[in-house]
Formats: sequence, C-alpha cells, structure tokens
Amino acid sequence: MDHPLDFIFNPQAIALAGVSADTSKPGPAQWYLMSLVKFGYKGKIYPLHPAGGEINGLKVYKNMAEIPGEVDYAVSAIPARHAPQFVRDCVAKGVKAVHLFTSGFSEIEDAAGRQLEEEVLQIAREGGVRLIGPNCMGIYCPSTGLTFAGDYPDQPGFPSRSGPLGLISQSGGNCICCIREASERGVYFSKAISYGNAADLNECDFLDYLAGDPDTKIIAMYIEGIKDGARFKQALRRAVKAKPVIIYKAGKTETGARTCSSHTSAIAGSAAVWQAFLNQVGVIQVANMSELVDITIALAFMPAPGGKNVVVAGSGGGVGVQAADDITDAGLHLPFLPVELRQALHSIYGTEAGSIFRNPVDIPPMAGKEYHVKAIQAIAGSKDVDVIILQFPLDLWALARRAVLLERFTDVVTSIRESVKKPLAVVLHNSVSQQARRLEDGARSRFADMGLPVYPSISRAALAISRYIWYNRRHNRG
Amino acid sequence: MDHPLDFIFNPQAIALAGVSADTSKPGPAQWYLMSLVKFGYKGKIYPLHPAGGEINGLKVYKNMAEIPGEVDYAVSAIPARHAPQFVRDCVAKGVKAVHLFTSGFSEIEDAAGRQLEEEVLQIAREGGVRLIGPNCMGIYCPSTGLTFAGDYPDQPGFPSRSGPLGLISQSGGNCICCIREASERGVYFSKAISYGNAADLNECDFLDYLAGDPDTKIIAMYIEGIKDGARFKQALRRAVKAKPVIIYKAGKTETGARTCSSHTSAIAGSAAVWQAFLNQVGVIQVANMSELVDITIALAFMPAPGGKNVVVAGSGGGVGVQAADDITDAGLHLPFLPVELRQALHSIYGTEAGSIFRNPVDIPPMAGKEYHVKAIQAIAGSKDVDVIILQFPLDLWALARRAVLLERFTDVVTSIRESVKKPLAVVLHNSVSQQARRLEDGARSRFADMGLPVYPSISRAALAISRYIWYNRRHNRG
Repeated sequence: MDHPLDFIFNPQAIALAGVSADTSKPGPAQWYLMSLVKFGYKGKIYPLHPAGGEINGLKVYKNMAEIPGEVDYAVSAIPARHAPQFVRDCVAKGVKAVHLFTSGFSEIEDAAGRQLEEEVLQIAREGGVRLIGPNCMGIYCPSTGLTFAGDYPDQPGFPSRSGPLGLISQSGGNCICCIREASERGVYFSKAISYGNAADLNECDFLDYLAGDPDTKIIAMYIEGIKDGARFKQALRRAVKAKPVIIYKAGKTETGARTCSSHTSAIAGSAAVWQAFLNQVGVIQVANMSELVDITIALAFMPAPGGKNVVVAGSGGGVGVQAADDITDAGLHLPFLPVELRQALHSIYGTEAGSIFRNPVDIPPMAGKEYHVKAIQAIAGSKDVDVIILQFPLDLWALARRAVLLERFTDVVTSIRESVKKPLAVVLHNSVSQQARRLEDGARSRFADMGLPVYPSISRAALAISRYIWYNRRHNRG
Repeated sequence: MDHPLDFIFNPQAIALAGVSADTSKPGPAQWYLMSLVKFGYKGKIYPLHPAGGEINGLKVYKNMAEIPGEVDYAVSAIPARHAPQFVRDCVAKGVKAVHLFTSGFSEIEDAAGRQLEEEVLQIAREGGVRLIGPNCMGIYCPSTGLTFAGDYPDQPGFPSRSGPLGLISQSGGNCICCIREASERGVYFSKAISYGNAADLNECDFLDYLAGDPDTKIIAMYIEGIKDGARFKQALRRAVKAKPVIIYKAGKTETGARTCSSHTSAIAGSAAVWQAFLNQVGVIQVANMSELVDITIALAFMPAPGGKNVVVAGSGGGVGVQAADDITDAGLHLPFLPVELRQALHSIYGTEAGSIFRNPVDIPPMAGKEYHVKAIQAIAGSKDVDVIILQFPLDLWALARRAVLLERFTDVVTSIRESVKKPLAVVLHNSVSQQARRLEDGARSRFADMGLPVYPSISRAALAISRYIWYNRRHNRG
C-alpha cells in the first residue's frame, strides 16, 4: 500500500515538547514518553524542554534546532500560546506531522482560541506540515509501537496485539474507553486515531486512509461534527464499499449538539438528516460507544445469521421473560420451538419441572454438562433456528454455587463451540455484587480468547445481532 | 401492628422437607437449611427425609408426625407429585404456612401440572393452611432470620442488615438479583417475597401486608400477571397512599407475555392497559430490575429535587456530549450555566483550556481537591441548579493514574457531602477493563455506605431522577 498519510503511522523519529526532566511530579507528557518507550517504539525519541536535562536515560533537548538527527513527527504537550512558535520550529526542522495534545483552541468559548488555531493551521499549511488535533490524544498503532496510554500498576497500557478494528474518534476519552472495552472483549486494533478539533487532518482523511488500509477490516467512528459534508459523503461511500463502517454520531439532541461545540468546536448538524444519510449509504449506526463495540464483536466473531429466528437458552425464568421482550424490541423473532425439538429436550432432561422448553429455554441448572451439550446441539440442528444466545446470570444464584455452575457453563460452551456452526452469542449478565463480577470477568476473558462474542445483557446482544442482520441484507452479504 | 399474615414472617418452628442427611452431594434443600442456621434463625428447625439420619447436628425426621414439637411453617423441596401428601401432613400437624420451592405445577405445559396445583390448593384451603408458591424462593426477612441464600466462599448470602425496601417478586431469580444489587448499592430490605405461581397467597396479599408494615418505607414489585384484577387495583390504591410503590410489569410484548405463562403460569394482560392504570394510580413504572433499584436508591437517599435543572460535572468531553443527550432524553434540563457562575468557575480554575464550563462541566482532572470543592459549592449555590450529577469514568484515563484521580474524586465528594444540601447523584461509569472494575467496586461501596445514590451511567441516573420528580409532583411531595 502506498498512501500519502502512511508516514503518520510510521514515524522514524519523534520529538516530544513539554517533557520536563523533573520526575518528582510526572505529568501527561512524561507518561506519554514512558509509554512509547515501554510499548517498544523502535524509532528515536527526542524529549524537548527549555530547561534541558535527562529523563529515563534520554537527553532532553532545549529546543528543536538542538536535536542532532532528523525528526518526522512531533508532539506538543505545551500551553496553547506556544503552539505557533512550536509549529514554526517544526517547519524549520523538516517535521512532516505535528500532533497537538494541547487544548485551549477553537473549542473554548473565546475568540482568541479560534484565532490561535487559525494561526497554527496557517503556519502548518505554509510549511507543508500536517496537523493532528489540536485537543486530542493522537495515534495508537500497535504494529509500529505508537500509543498514548501509560502503563501503570493496576492500569495496563493498550494491548500490543494488533487486530481488525480501525477507530476514528473525535473524542480522546471515547477513543480510550473504546480501546479498553473492545480489547477486553477480544477485538484488537489496526489503528486508533483521536483527532479532536480537526484543524487540518480530519475525519475524511482518516476515513479515506482506513478504507484503503489492508490491516483494517472494520471501521468505527465517533463523530461530533464534520468539516466538509460533500467530501465526507464521498469518503464514506468509498469506505462502505470496502468494509463495514460503524458510526456513533453524537449530539442527537439540541443540548448534545451544543455540547459538541464546546468539546471539539464541532457543528453537529441535524440528527434526522444524519440518520437518513447514514442509513442510505449503508452505515451501521449506534447510539453510544458500548453499542459500537457490541456490533464490532458481532462482525468480527460471528458468521452471518441466515435469518432472524433466535433461541435464548440459559438460566432463570424471570431473565427469560425480560429476554423475550428484549429480543422482540430489537426486531428479532423468538419462535416457539417446534414440537419435535421440545420433545427432544424433554427426553434429554427427563422432565420439564423447573425448566422451560419453549423459547427462551430455561435449562435445569443442576444437570450435568453432557445433557446441556446434547440440548444445545439439538437446538442448533433445527432448521427453524438461525441464532443461538447462551446466557448465564451470575447474580441470580442463591442456593447453588455460581462458581461451579459458571465453570460448567463455560465447559459446555467450549465443548459445543466447534460442532455448532450457527451464529452463537454468549450473554454474561452484568453483575453488581463484587465477587460475582470477578467470576464474570474471568469467564468473559476466556470466551473472548476463544473468539466468542460476549454481551452484558440480552438487549445489547439482540441489538447487535439485529444490526448485523440489517448490515448483511443491506449489502447482500452472508 | 397486627396483620393476619404476620405469622408468615415470624415462624417459630420450621419443618424442611427434602433434606437428605447425605452431605456428599449437597442440594438446594441442604443449602437452604444451612443458610437458615448461619443467618441466625432463632426458631427450631426440623429437617425431614424418609431416610432419617442427622445433618449439621440436627436430627432428620422421617415424617412430619415424628416431629416432637409444634411446627408453624413448612418448606417443601420434594418432587411435585409428593406435594399433596406433604400438605396433608402439614394440615394434620397444625402447620399454618407452607412454602413450596417445588416446581412442576401450573407453570409447565401439562394438564397434570395444573391439576396437581389445584389439588394442593384445595387440601390447603380445607385444612386452613396458607401456601407460598409453588415454584418460588419464599421469604427473606433479616429481622427474623429468614433467608433463602446460602453463604458460600466467594458468594455471600443476603445481608443481615435490615432496611426500608419491601420487595414482592413473582420470579425467584429476579428477587435474588434485586437483593444483591440493591444491597450492593446501599439499600437494604425489610422483607422480600418470591411468590411464584401464587396458587394461594398472591401479589394482593403481600402488597396489602407491606402497605401496612411499618418497617417497609418503599414497596417494589416484579409482576408477570395478576390473579384478581379488581382486588389488585384496590390493594394498589391503598398502598400508593401509604408509601412509594415501584412496579416492573413484565411481558410487555406478545412474546414476553407468552413467556410469563411458561414461567409462573401468569396471564400477562395488555401492556398498554397496565401502563395507563399504573400511571393513573401514581405507581412508578420501570422497565427492568436494575431500573427498579435505580429509582429505589433515589427515593431512599436523595432529597426531593426542586425542579428539573441538572448540572453534570466530572471528567471527559465525549462523556459530556453523551450526557447531554441522555439528560435531555430523560426529560430533564441541562441549562447553560449563568454567566456569573461560569466566571466563578473560571476564576477558581484559572483557565478553561482542557475544561468546559458550560454544562456538562468538564473539570480539569489534574487540579487539586480544594479547587473542585470550591467549584461544586459554587454550582450548588446557584438558584438555577436543582440537581447535581458528579461523574467519574474509570476506563477513560490513559496518561494519568485513575486510582489517584478516583481517590481525589472520592475525597471531593466526601468533603462536599454535608455542605451541599441539593440532591446529588454520583455516576461511576460502568467499566469493562478488569482492574478498573475493582476500583469502581471499592468506590461504589464507599459512596453507598455514605448514603449516596450511585449509578453506572448518566442515562440511568437521569431516568431515576426524572421518575423521582414525576413521583413527587404526582403526589404533591417534595
């Protein structure tokens, strides 16, 4: 591949402005430096600070001119008022891309902020330097060692493993949350870009890049507003032809739209117009960052469902009643099981007392693994079943040991995983009690490692499956 | 108080049928026995099993007639087909209430199941015995030592502490989940009743009881269907006059209604009719068990809001954009902060760069505690502010130590707690990454212990606050 923005994801040497050698009060710039080093970034790193000194074995340069080697990528973590001079220094040094962590530009309600952003942009344009930001976290690219998450005790940095998801997020916080959530649920990243105010490089540039990036199989976007509607539409149509595109467009309500402007200076635009356009182009739309991850893991892990008939099997009658409403609300079907299948379940378990063999199927929790394996295989074998959701609620157990039952559930899922070819999702209901959450965390990791889509509720699983079916039909896939 | 059902919550001696003395394969009946003992039930306990023997230092009686003392409460964990004889034995022994754990009655799609339930009911009625169930978990009443949750390693039983909430749940699983979630979030129980198929005692009886129970300040119900509409309406009107009543009526969709019938044999009825009736009576309606807990903790912990103007303050610009949409969706207002308040915030923090002082307020995370305390007090002091939501997202941090920031957030909340008289809710955004969840759990416990309402998302906090305001206006309270 050869794309004009390739260099942004493959810098050879990074200058980092705002790194004091005084480590007694470490700030974000120092953590950024440390995280690059720990993450295994292979290029050169040049810390910059007027006071000079040394940090982590690296010389701190007093200014850009003092740096001996070439620099193609520079990061600014210095106050906004110094940004114009910094970008001028970058131009003089021959830097190709500048990432401005710094905020205090057009997003604040202050004419001076907007003017400062204009000034920086003009300097960059005239000097042939591309800008990322300002007011953003920048680039995460595990394959080239770029990251923006420090590695702390009890707070790991981002995973070094690469994966199919390319994320473009106007919000740095949402970008971080998405990386943490998706990777915890088994989906890793090709690239993630937090681009903030988008003074220069914007959503169109990054969308265009990821559309052509062979490492990116799925594109996800969090957008507050767009800079150039016509160009965005064009980029989006091209991207959608190449791979699935998921968009969370924020600022649905008037108040939300107002908040976009104070966050990243974005003009949100009409929610209805956005929705209609995205729908027409064939973009998968979601309403928050967790839903974005939900559909991503369906796309990444699940074969295409042949239809909308879902069977929910697991524990708990009340859970089943809620499940029935949730499946229906998501536009899926929860058919009665055919009589021969119900008879099969009856003969596997011996009795229906304490169970329900309609749909949702409430399986007898105390039965052994071999019974459940047979039951799920019987369900999967029915031509009336398109998707199977296996659900396990941790907080539900009172007169039984949930740890033992969870272990059995995990064993059952592991056993049927290969033989069941139909789409399968696991729901580990979000627990509230603390010990239950520990067990839930462990099981979720195991399932995620197996490449199974895991959801925290039936409603979120159902919504993701419904969107997945919509997407496949819309694009004649599956 | 003197209520004809008092004896159900204060049994003097419990006979428990189906407890084998063989502890090599402990089942639910054995765990029920152990949990009563550990929970500190003060009355006599008589295990029953045809094989006799001894368990946990207690003699296992071969039949009811063999029990030497009086028995006023009996629990059946034996197969359904033996239930008629068991209830006959109870009548002969002078038992006043029988709780049938046992399932396999009218909830299964089998004429014999319905017939068996009729038979048992008739025996009970003729013998003057009241039935709880069948197909249910029975009674949790911490003040008299009744429980149905075993105490296991890593799986504590229900709390021994009492509290204001009385719960009536047709589903045992939902009952258990609700007890676990509410107590984890700081709200404890006067009584909780899982009543299943409601062959005899039903939602009306328990509603009537809790309406008059001085220990119950808030009533919450999970209902799949009702037995006697006219009586229920009457009981509900009376209860609503006495205290807040929250209802989650399941079976909203046709599929959900069908599932109610296979779970507890309930006839769900039309969702629209239910909704209109409950609304007219002044019942707080919710759509799932977690929302039920959400409104309960608002009722239990929060003073009545004077209006719908909410300020959201905390960390994260993208989080703020989502918050703005969520607040608006819940029917609340997110007003611009008045100019003098914004100026006050500006002078407290010195700059707006990296912050947002509109509303949501994105506070500079790195500022010290004293700045945040001043800022929140300034916000609380504004006459344009009715409710304050303080939010902290664990998964959002990358170049800062979330444990340190969370500690500071907790300190700030603790400091302002006494001086801020306006309604205050805390949102600890539901984390996905494991170490973040540990921190979140610890902080939630601290806040719950302080009597602060804690929510896992802005949307859930906003919905609970909105319902609380609706309730107060509907009943001219606050």
